[in-house]
Amino acid sequence: MQYRVLAELKKCLPPDAMITDEERARVYECDGLSGYRQLPACVLLPETVEQVQAILRICYREKIPVVARGAGTGLSGGALPVQDGVVLGLARFNRILDINPLQRSARVQSGVVNISISEAASCHGLYYAPDPSSQIACTIGGNVAENAGGVHCLKYGLTVHNILALKMVTAEGDVLEIGSEALDTAGYDLSALLTGSEGMLGIIVEVTVKLLPKPPFSRVLLASFAEIEAAGRGVADIIANGIVPAGLEMMDKAAIGAVEAYMHVGYPVHAAAILLCEIDGVEEEVKDVMAQVAQILRSAGADEVRIAKDASESERFWAGRKAAFPAVGRLAPDYYCMDGTIPRKHIASVLNRITTLSGEYGLGVVNVFHAGDGNLHPLILYDVSVPGEFGKAEEFGGRILEVCVEAGGTITGEHGVGVEKINQMCIQFTAGELTQFHAVKTAFDARGILNPGKAVPTLRRCAEFGAIHVRSGRLPFADIERF
Amino acid sequence: MQYRVLAELKKCLPPDAMITDEERARVYECDGLSGYRQLPACVLLPETVEQVQAILRICYREKIPVVARGAGTGLSGGALPVQDGVVLGLARFNRILDINPLQRSARVQSGVVNISISEAASCHGLYYAPDPSSQIACTIGGNVAENAGGVHCLKYGLTVHNILALKMVTAEGDVLEIGSEALDTAGYDLSALLTGSEGMLGIIVEVTVKLLPKPPFSRVLLASFAEIEAAGRGVADIIANGIVPAGLEMMDKAAIGAVEAYMHVGYPVHAAAILLCEIDGVEEEVKDVMAQVAQILRSAGADEVRIAKDASESERFWAGRKAAFPAVGRLAPDYYCMDGTIPRKHIASVLNRITTLSGEYGLGVVNVFHAGDGNLHPLILYDVSVPGEFGKAEEFGGRILEVCVEAGGTITGEHGVGVEKINQMCIQFTAGELTQFHAVKTAFDARGILNPGKAVPTLRRCAEFGAIHVRSGRLPFADIERF
Repeated sequence: MQYRVLAELKKCLPPDAMITDEERARVYECDGLSGYRQLPACVLLPETVEQVQAILRICYREKIPVVARGAGTGLSGGALPVQDGVVLGLARFNRILDINPLQRSARVQSGVVNISISEAASCHGLYYAPDPSSQIACTIGGNVAENAGGVHCLKYGLTVHNILALKMVTAEGDVLEIGSEALDTAGYDLSALLTGSEGMLGIIVEVTVKLLPKPPFSRVLLASFAEIEAAGRGVADIIANGIVPAGLEMMDKAAIGAVEAYMHVGYPVHAAAILLCEIDGVEEEVKDVMAQVAQILRSAGADEVRIAKDASESERFWAGRKAAFPAVGRLAPDYYCMDGTIPRKHIASVLNRITTLSGEYGLGVVNVFHAGDGNLHPLILYDVSVPGEFGKAEEFGGRILEVCVEAGGTITGEHGVGVEKINQMCIQFTAGELTQFHAVKTAFDARGILNPGKAVPTLRRCAEFGAIHVRSGRLPFADIERF
Repeated sequence: MQYRVLAELKKCLPPDAMITDEERARVYECDGLSGYRQLPACVLLPETVEQVQAILRICYREKIPVVARGAGTGLSGGALPVQDGVVLGLARFNRILDINPLQRSARVQSGVVNISISEAASCHGLYYAPDPSSQIACTIGGNVAENAGGVHCLKYGLTVHNILALKMVTAEGDVLEIGSEALDTAGYDLSALLTGSEGMLGIIVEVTVKLLPKPPFSRVLLASFAEIEAAGRGVADIIANGIVPAGLEMMDKAAIGAVEAYMHVGYPVHAAAILLCEIDGVEEEVKDVMAQVAQILRSAGADEVRIAKDASESERFWAGRKAAFPAVGRLAPDYYCMDGTIPRKHIASVLNRITTLSGEYGLGVVNVFHAGDGNLHPLILYDVSVPGEFGKAEEFGGRILEVCVEAGGTITGEHGVGVEKINQMCIQFTAGELTQFHAVKTAFDARGILNPGKAVPTLRRCAEFGAIHVRSGRLPFADIERF
C-alpha cells in the first residue's frame, strides 16, 4: 500500500489505532480456519462510526480491499486478510447502547461479545437466544456476518431470526439504518440480506437484537443406541411427533470415546451413538414432553434412556457435549471442522457415506452435531506436519459437502462459506443464481472492495473448478470475464 | 400495446389464458385498495413456469410493465395494474406439490390459498402459522410479496419467518431457486430479500413454507378498561413480564360498539377499550399463564377480566374481533384501513393523537389492531360520494403514518407499501437508503419492468412530495434524474 494512503488513513484515526508492524499484525493473519494465513497491509481499529466512514471513503477511492473482523472466531476464513488490503477490526465497538425490556430488544455496537448481551439483559429475565459454541468470545457483528447458529437454534432460530435492525456503513462510506424495532419494516428487507453476507455488502456497526424471556424450566435427556440408524430414526420420530426440543444433539462412538477419556461424564462408551435432547418451558410441560420423548426413543431402538434428575445432572449431560471439540483435539495433532446441513431423514445414510470416505482418505472422522437441524459437524483428524495431509483433509471435507448437496442439503449450517467452501458454491448454485448474487454485490459495492474473494465464487473460478451447476439453461459465458 | 406483441404473448399461452376485453379485464383493475383503479393492456393467466418465463422474456425485450397478482386481496395497491402493462395472474398456480411431515415443510405453487396449506397439513397435526384476515382467499405468493402477518404473528412471526425456499422467475425470464429446506443456506439470503418486495424483484412461482405442530390447547381472555391508557399499560406489562401470547388484540370503544351492534357477542359496550389475549401450549401451562395475565391486567387497571371457560367461549370472544371489519363497514359508506407499527409503549399516546386528528379532519376513526406487535389498523370512515372525502381520508391516513414514524415506528405492519404509502417512504428513509433500494432493484430488474411505480419512490417523487429525509448527509441530486 502506498505510503500516502497509509498516512491518510492514520490521520482519520486516534493514536494506536493502526497496526503496520509485522509482529502485531500476525495476530490478525487468520481466523478460526487457521490453515489459511495472510498478512494484511495494515490493521485499523476505529472507535467511531465517523472513523469507519472515513476509512471506507479512502479505501473506496483507492480501490483497497477491506476485510471486516470481529473476534476472529469464524471457522470458514471469512475474516482472512487480503494481501495489500486493510483489516477493519471492530473490537472497539464494544458498547451496549440500550436494553429495552418493554420492547424486548437490545441495541449494541457490533463488537459486543455475544454472551455479554445475555448478561446485560439477565436482570430483566431476558436473554439473546443464538448461542454459537464460541459465544464467550465471538462478537454480534461477526454473528450477523456469518448468520451464526448454536445448540438452541432448532427452537429459537439462527441469527437472522433474532435480528431487528442494523446500522451499517456502505462501501462508499454512507450510513444506512435498515430494519426497525417493529416486527415489520417497509422497503426491501436489507437487514436479512446483510445477515450472512460475510462482510461483502457493508460494514455493520450497530445491531438491534430481539431478547427472549428465559425459559422457566428445562431438562436434558440422554439416549444411547447400538446402531446409528436407530439414532437417526429417533431424531426423525421426535420431530415427526410435533415436539420442538430446545436442542437435539448427536455424538457418534468416536466422539463419545474422546469425551469420556477427557471429561468422565458417564456417557455410555459402547454405544454407536447418543442423543442429547433438551426440552424447556414450564415444569409440568417439560416433564410431560420428556416422558413422551423417552417413549419415542425407546420405540426407535434406544438401549437406554436417562432423564436428568435435576438441573445439575442436566448440566453434566451437556458438559460432555460442550467439551467435545477440545476432547477431539486430543485424538490427533489437528482436526478440521466441517459444516453442512441435510434433511433429517438422511442422517444415518450420510453418516455412513462419511465413514466410507474416511476409509478412502485414510483419515479418522468424529461426528458431533446438531441432529435436530440436520446440521452436521464432522471433525476430520489429520496431522499438519505430515506433507499432504492438510490438503487431503480439505479434499475429504469438500467431498462431505458434496454428499450433503446430493442428499438435498446445503454446504453450510452456521459457519458460512468464507474461503473454505467457495468451490462448493459452484455445486450448490447454478450460473444464473451466482450471476444474481454478483448483481446484488455490485448494487452494494460496485468496486468490489469489501472482502473480495470470499463466499461467492466468480464464474471463472467455477469453470476452473470444473463444476458449474447448470440447472435452468445456458451458461452466461459473457459474464465469466466480468467477475 | 402493439398487436404484434399481444399476438406473440398469446402464442406462449394455452387457449383462454389471455384477457383483453374490457368487461373481463375489469375484475383485475384494482386490488383491496379499491380507491385506485387502472385497466391493464391485458391479463395473462399462465399455467406453467415455462409460460411465465416466455411472458417475461417478451416483456423484458419490449420493456412492457408486468404486475404480478395473486388473489388481489392486498390492501395497499401492490397489484394495481399499470396502463399499457400486463397483469400476470398466478391463480392457476394452485397445486400443493408436497407436504413433508418429517421436515415439517410444504412445497406449494404460489397461487395456492393460504388456508389450503393448513388444511392439507392438518392430517399430520401441522399447520402454516401466518394467518392474515384474508386467509380464506389470499394466496401464498401474495403473502410472500407483501410479507403478510396476522393475529398470531406476535408469537409465530411474519411470512418472512415462516418461509424456507422460493422458486422465482427473474425479469429476464430465468428461473432461480433460492433458500432450501435446511435451516440455513449459503450465499446471500435472497429469499428473505424477495419476501416483502411487492413483485418488484421477480415473479414467485413456488414457495416452501415451514409447518408447525398445532398447539394442543389454547384459551382466550377478554379484559375491559375504562381508559385507553390503562389498556396500553396492560399490553406493555404482559410483554414486560416475559409472556409471549399467541395473540394480543385491542379494540377501542367505537370498534366495540360496531361489533356489538352487528354480532351481539357480549363485549362490554361502555368500555373505552378491550384486550383479547390468547395463550396456547399445553393445558397446565396455558392455565397458569392465563391466571398471571389476568392478575397483570387487573393491576394495570382493568375493570373486568373474563377467561373463556371452554373452547366455545374462546371462539365467541374471537368471533367479534374477526367480524370487526364488516361491522365497521356498517358505520359509514366506506372505510379506509391504515396500517402502521409503533413501539408498544406509545400505544395510548398514538391513539390519542389519532383521535385529535380525527377531529381536525372531521372523519370518524375506529381502532381494532394487533396491540402485542404495536401494529395499528385505524379504520377511517368516509363517504366516497361526498366530493373530496376520499382525498381527505387519504391525507388523514398519511398523517397517521407520519405519527407512527415520529413515535419510532414504521409505516407498515403487514399490508405493504404499494401505491398507498409510497409518499411516506420518503419520510421513513433517507435519500441514501432509497438509493440503495434502487440499486438492489436494478440488480434484479435493470429495465424496471416489474411492478413499476410501487413500494419504493424515486428521489424525484420524494422531492416533489417535499419530504426527503436526509439523515446522514448530502442528497445525491445526480440520481434524481436516473430513477
